[in-house]
Parts: sequence; structure tokens; C-alpha cells
Amino acid sequence: MDIHAGANRAFIEGLKDRLGPAFVLTEAADLDAFLTETRGLYRGQALAVVRPKDRDEVAFVMRECAEHGIPVVPQGGNTGLVGGGVPAGGIVLSLTRLDQVRDLDPVNATITVEAGCILKAVQDAADQAGYLFPLSLASEGSCRIGGNLATNAGGTAVLRYGNMRELTLGLEVVLADGRVWNGLKGLRKDNTGYDLKDLFIGSEGTLGIITAAVLKLFPKLQVRVTAFVGCASAERALTLFHQLREAAGDQLTAFEYLPDFGLEIVLKHRPSSVRPLSGRHHSYALIELSSPQRDADLQGRLETILGQALEQDLIEDATLGTSEAQSQGLWSLRESLSEVQRLEGGSIKHDVAVPVSRVAEFIETATRACEAAMPGIRVCAFGHFGDGNVHFNLSQPVDMDKNAFLAQWERFNRIVHDIVHRMDGSIAAEHGVGLIKRGELLLYKDPVALDLMHALKKTLDPHNLLNPGKVLETGDPLTAISSLTVHS
Amino acid sequence: MDIHAGANRAFIEGLKDRLGPAFVLTEAADLDAFLTETRGLYRGQALAVVRPKDRDEVAFVMRECAEHGIPVVPQGGNTGLVGGGVPAGGIVLSLTRLDQVRDLDPVNATITVEAGCILKAVQDAADQAGYLFPLSLASEGSCRIGGNLATNAGGTAVLRYGNMRELTLGLEVVLADGRVWNGLKGLRKDNTGYDLKDLFIGSEGTLGIITAAVLKLFPKLQVRVTAFVGCASAERALTLFHQLREAAGDQLTAFEYLPDFGLEIVLKHRPSSVRPLSGRHHSYALIELSSPQRDADLQGRLETILGQALEQDLIEDATLGTSEAQSQGLWSLRESLSEVQRLEGGSIKHDVAVPVSRVAEFIETATRACEAAMPGIRVCAFGHFGDGNVHFNLSQPVDMDKNAFLAQWERFNRIVHDIVHRMDGSIAAEHGVGLIKRGELLLYKDPVALDLMHALKKTLDPHNLLNPGKVLETGDPLTAISSLTVHS
Repeated sequence: MDIHAGANRAFIEGLKDRLGPAFVLTEAADLDAFLTETRGLYRGQALAVVRPKDRDEVAFVMRECAEHGIPVVPQGGNTGLVGGGVPAGGIVLSLTRLDQVRDLDPVNATITVEAGCILKAVQDAADQAGYLFPLSLASEGSCRIGGNLATNAGGTAVLRYGNMRELTLGLEVVLADGRVWNGLKGLRKDNTGYDLKDLFIGSEGTLGIITAAVLKLFPKLQVRVTAFVGCASAERALTLFHQLREAAGDQLTAFEYLPDFGLEIVLKHRPSSVRPLSGRHHSYALIELSSPQRDADLQGRLETILGQALEQDLIEDATLGTSEAQSQGLWSLRESLSEVQRLEGGSIKHDVAVPVSRVAEFIETATRACEAAMPGIRVCAFGHFGDGNVHFNLSQPVDMDKNAFLAQWERFNRIVHDIVHRMDGSIAAEHGVGLIKRGELLLYKDPVALDLMHALKKTLDPHNLLNPGKVLETGDPLTAISSLTVHS
Repeated sequence: MDIHAGANRAFIEGLKDRLGPAFVLTEAADLDAFLTETRGLYRGQALAVVRPKDRDEVAFVMRECAEHGIPVVPQGGNTGLVGGGVPAGGIVLSLTRLDQVRDLDPVNATITVEAGCILKAVQDAADQAGYLFPLSLASEGSCRIGGNLATNAGGTAVLRYGNMRELTLGLEVVLADGRVWNGLKGLRKDNTGYDLKDLFIGSEGTLGIITAAVLKLFPKLQVRVTAFVGCASAERALTLFHQLREAAGDQLTAFEYLPDFGLEIVLKHRPSSVRPLSGRHHSYALIELSSPQRDADLQGRLETILGQALEQDLIEDATLGTSEAQSQGLWSLRESLSEVQRLEGGSIKHDVAVPVSRVAEFIETATRACEAAMPGIRVCAFGHFGDGNVHFNLSQPVDMDKNAFLAQWERFNRIVHDIVHRMDGSIAAEHGVGLIKRGELLLYKDPVALDLMHALKKTLDPHNLLNPGKVLETGDPLTAISSLTVHS
């Protein structure tokens, strides 16, 4: 037994004394689920998984970690897509027991929740009180609010309601040294100094541990109508988007984009799905109008706009989903896309954003560049078109070896990210940086911004204990993390 | 001549060489307007007023200041209400020559403007392109975007569109050492690291010099209807607000509050103004519904809601302004209030916010406390009720000596701010901290937050050159600032 092992044992015993032995997991079998991430890209190592029950226990754990120099990787639902929650030694701090809705204030239109609340539970709590909490993601049944905050989560409702950042009024945060910043205010206006809240949101657990938040609520939506339209080009889809926003304003709550290839693989792999339009088209948009006003004539408005778009040749065909069942049927086509893409072999993925005005140009330019770089490659560029956010995924050529294809990931990063960069875009739009993109950041992020980020990290976490090596390269070897099946 | 004078002279000559002598003002007569602020509370001193023409000249000036250890107070329109722009030596860096609209992107719905643009010019540029830039303040004809950003400005449109922070997508900032951070992106989603933008917004020029910003645009409003209603209590006004938001959602774009005293002094001092309702009431709300949809039946909706409110006794009377002239007439009653209050003698002012659900309780509790503390005091609590933001102003008793009344400012700070603090509110809601409230911050701000603010200041401005002594006490004596007529 070396000295470290003895020190670590004392550290673990100290945690068990305070939290109870059931909440400090050290057995390999218990740790397993916390060491890998959802795509199976990486496997990490940890001394223990620690499960505090409340803010004070989180503060205790952080004080102990600071004293013993033990790194901490916070984890919520462990649904992240960039390896941000994979530990390289130290402990995993699991926030799942902090799952209380502390308050719901109807007149202030806020809900105060703990970091371990599952997103769906927050949506449901809002709904039961007659409100909408709009954040909506594929993983909403298992991701947790702390992770949504740490990654500034996006999803399908950003067009109307903004990212997690815009939905947050206040935070409670445990700092690297165990002190608690109480910023849990539900104010619409507060100019008493620097904006600390937004420094922690999106910092992926590298600056502090968020334990609770005050989130905004909105009037519940009473009516919605969905349309699925076929377009001859991404450029025409963009013109349609622009006209829709002009005509429908805030009633336009979603504008999602799918390419022909995307719809075809959904129809191929999900036998229950129904072809929404009789013919095939270059690309498709899934459009949603919704309103909290029961008497809003969304269907009439949408029919008018789409009728004009047909006359202008902006769209080639359209179908409306006016019942809840029809809407859900159309949405399921979009929502199945990530899942079915796996069944088409290896895929190289990019989560990027450009100014909305350039999203069609981006899709077309990057598609041509990738097709030129590898004949037979099948571009599946889909996503939150109205936010300029494209999941620019590449499915392998049909007859290619999967691993040979995936070995080209870096090459396609360069092709796609270079185009994004030239268009003043973002190479990490909504999934974050984590492990996967920290190297890319060095290539594309403004160097002054990188300097500032390092300075802020050093200020808030001088001993590099908070999720070390994520987002920024902070001198850590990360040897305890192995790439399992990187890029699969 | 002492050594400093010689060093300063070399510094000034260096600036003149680069910027041209016309843009480095050193004559007392030229400096005067830059040394005092709009309320006439303070008078500062400065070596010079420096007027760079673009970002590169700003960076040059900052490098020179860093090299010579010269403090810098950035100034835009110099319309601030908290003394944030008053210099205590060093230079005033006037941004007014950086007044270009660099870009307007209709499809991305963004406008890129320089810090010296007057707010009204940005509103107009948006309007001419068929868009709305919603920030709206009393000083919009002279305040400038850089100041709006530095103070995270609020105003009357926050209820629907948010503060300046929520309206900003990207920034360009010159740092304390003269380096430029290029964060001038117009992206709706960007998770490539820490949120630097929001650190600079609201930092009152103490962390960096904002030189340009990408701002959000919105669909232009096509219809609006305004109502002026009389209520028997603030509590009933709050219930009305809640019902309006439920029923009208985003169409509710303003809910401003005035007390009986406020309306009466407007009618008294502005002979052109017309009493909006036949009788007098405890308090009034100015309500606006607006929409970018030309066919939205706002009048019908508002009449229905107010009809129900009359039946429920939530309001005692109401009048609708359906033409633009009528709307403006009703708005002018609200907008004249600050101005006419001066004609009622000394006034002690507080710019505070509480959760919206507590705004009526706050007004009633604080009014009772102030009336108990000084018989005859006339409370004029008005403002952005729908944001929980109250300008809790106190007019002196009619027969009291003005200076004797104003000498009680600290005492009333304690009474009012203690109540705000107990209600989890903010003692600096939309005007900022500046000089006036930095002492109050020590009493009410979470001490961990204050520690973090000091740490961030030290990280971004290690030599305390950027607007030293504003927001935070940073060891500076501020002896060069004299209180002229404090609290008048």
C-alpha cells in the first residue's frame, strides 16, 4: 500500500462518515455505469462515486476534496455527448439525490429546482401548475437539470424560448473550495454587480458545482399545428423560414430540417413510420406553430403562408398535422433520425452553428466538400435550422469498412469546421466541448478568448480540481481515460 | 513641474500623435461636460478626454494607459444615474466617435453596431429595415449602446424582450492591456467554452471596454392598444397583471404602475396633460398589448380581460387608447413622472426589484414603513411593475426644508433596502451600482459573490485601471471626485 492509497482511504472514510456508507460507492460493479458515457466513446477511472443528498453535503464533499487534492467530476443523468462527465481519477460527484422541486411561484412564473431533477420531472411539475417549462431534448426523460445548466442545453424549443442560459434567473453553486454562492434569486432585473450566473452556466462543471436553479416558466401552450413540407433546396427552406418568422412571429416555435437521405432511412428502419408526402424532395422542414391563446387561428395562418410558398415555388408539397396524433407522427420522423443513423454504419458527427442567414449556404457548401472528399459518403445534415444549428452527420459509403471510415474523422473535422469557421460559426453549438472538442477549440477559438478562459479557470479553480481537462487543456494527462471506441 | 506631470505630458503627447490633437481634449472648458453626470451629484477630474475613432485606436489608448498606469473611465452618452462615468483622475475614454452600424442581417435578425451609436439611432436603423430593436429608455435620444451594455440597461420593454443582456449575441471588447477579444458573433447557439460576453455586460466599464456588439432584432410591431386603469390597491393590480399575462401571453408588452400621488403631480405640473379617468384611485396601471400580426384583435382581447376585471373588482375604472395619439397621451402620463417629481422638492430615490409575486407587498410594506418614519412624506413608487422593478421614490413633506429631508437619505436607504433584502430582491435593479450604491452592496450582496467579483476584477484588470472604484471598492481613495450636491 503506498502513501496515496492510505490518504485516499482516509478521504473515503471521511465521506462515508458524513454521507453514510451507502452513498459512497467504491465497488467496481457499482462504479461501472458512472465511468462510461452514452456513446461508449470513453471509459474513465474513479476512486469512488459520491452521492450527497443536499447542498450542504455537496459543500462538505468539496471541502474534503480541496483538502486532499482530489479531482471531482460532477455528473447528472450522464447523457452528455462530448465526454464531459468521464472521470480521470478522483471522484464522480453524482447529483441525482438532489432532486427536489423547492418552489413554484405562479405569479413570478418561476420554478426553483435542484440540480438532480430530471428534465421531464421539471416539465411535468410546470405542466401540473398550468405552466410551460420549454426546454426539450431527446434525452429529457433521463438528463438532469444540473447537466442542462452545465452544458447550456439547447434542443428543439430554442427558436422561441432560448437556450438553458436564457431560461435561468438564479443559481446556487458550490465552489471549488466548498464555499456556497447563494445566487438563487428569481428576479427579472438585478444589476448588483458582475453576472456570476452565466459564468457557471455552460462551464461543464469546470468552475463550480451547480446545486439548484431558479428557472423561468411560460404560459402553457393551448394550440399547435405542425406541417411537413418538401423543398427543392436548403436555400428555399431558408426563404420559407424567413417568411414564416415575419408572418407568424413568436407563434413559430419550431423549424427543423431533414435531408432526403434522412427521411429515407427513417422510413426504411422504422416500419411503423408513414411517408408524409407522396413524392421525394431534396429536403424537408418540420414546422410548428403554437400559442398559449386558445383562439389563435394557427391552422389558417399556416395554410395561408404555405399556400403562398407553394405559389412562389419555395416548397414543392406540404402536409398539415392538426391533431395531436398527427403532430406527434410528424415529429417522430424528425426525432428518430439520430437513432436510425446508427443502422447505416459508421457516422462522423458535427454539432455546429452558423448565423441563420448562412445555414443553407453552410449545408450546401459543406455537403459538396464532403462528397468531393469521399465519393459515396452520405451526408445527413439535419437539425435546428431556425437556430442556424446543424447536426452535420456523415454516414459511411455503403460498401466501406466502418473503422476505415471512422479513421477519417479528423480529416472531416477539418473540412467541416474550416467552413464553419469561415462563416463565423461555432464548432460546438449545443453539445458542449467536453473531451471531444477541446483540441478543436485550440484551432478555432479566438486566442484572446482562450487566454481569458484559462485565467477564469485559474481564478475559480486554482488547483484544477473541478472536472480537470474538460473544455480546456489544463496540463492534465487524462491518462485514466481510455478511448474505448472513439468515433463509433 | 513634478515627475508625474512630465510623464503625463509624454503620455498625452503620444495619444495626440496617434489620434490627432483634436481628439485628445485637455482644456478645462472642453473637459467640463465629461466630468459631471446627469443628476449633478458628483464632479470628477481628468487629465484628458480621449476620443478614439475606432477599435484599433481604443486598443492603442488602452495599451498606452496600461504602460503608463493611467486609469480609464469609459463614457458613452454620459446619461447614467449612479455616477459610474465620473472620473477620479486618469482619462475619460469617450466612445462617441465609434458610431457606425456595421451590419444589419435581416434573415439572422441581427444588427451589428459600435458602442458609440445612440440608442435611438439603432432603433431607427432597425425600423427602416422593417425590424424592431426593443430596448427603450427615457434617455434613448442621447444614451449610447456601449453604456446600455455596460449597465445592462432595462426600461419599459423588458417584460416582453428582456434586458440588454438578453438582447445581445456577441461583443467586441478591448481588455485592460489593450488586447482585443473578438466575440462579435451573431449565433443563437454557441457552447465553445465560458460565457465571456455576459461577464462584460453589466460590469460598468470595470472589466473591459466594449467597442461593438451584435444585437437581436424582432418582428416589427404592427398593432398596439393601450389601457389606463384605476385600482383600489397594488395587490389588485398584481392580480390583474397575472390574469393579463395568462390571457395575453407575449402580447402583453408593458405593465407600468403609478400611484395616485404620481398621477396628480403630473396633472398639476403639465397643463397639457388630461386626466385619463373621471375619478381618482389608489393606483393606476398603464397596460400595453402589441403584436407583429396585423390581424391580431388586441382591442377585443383587452376589452374582454378588463371587462372581467371590472366584474371581479380588480379594477375600478379603465380607458382604452386605440389610436397612436391616444396611446401616446397615456404613455406621456407615465413618462413625465420622473421629471415632474423634481418640482415637488427633494426626492430620495431607490431603484429596486423583487420577485414579481411580491411587488405589491413590497410597495405596501415599504410605503407604510416610510410614512411611519416621517409623517408627511409622499411616497411615489412607480415603474416596471411587471418586472418587479419599482422606482421607490420619496418626495419630501410639503413644508420641510429640502436639505434637511435629503440628509435623511441613508436612513431611508436602510428602511427600503432592508425590506427589499428580506424579500430576496435587488437594491440595484436597472440603473447599476456605480458610485452611489457600492457601499450598499457591502451590506446586502452575498459575501461569496463579492469575493468572486473582486477575484474577477483582479483577473481581468490586475492593475485596477478600468473605471477604478466603481461597483467595487478596490482600495482607491476617489479623492478626485467631489460630491457636488449629493442626493439632490
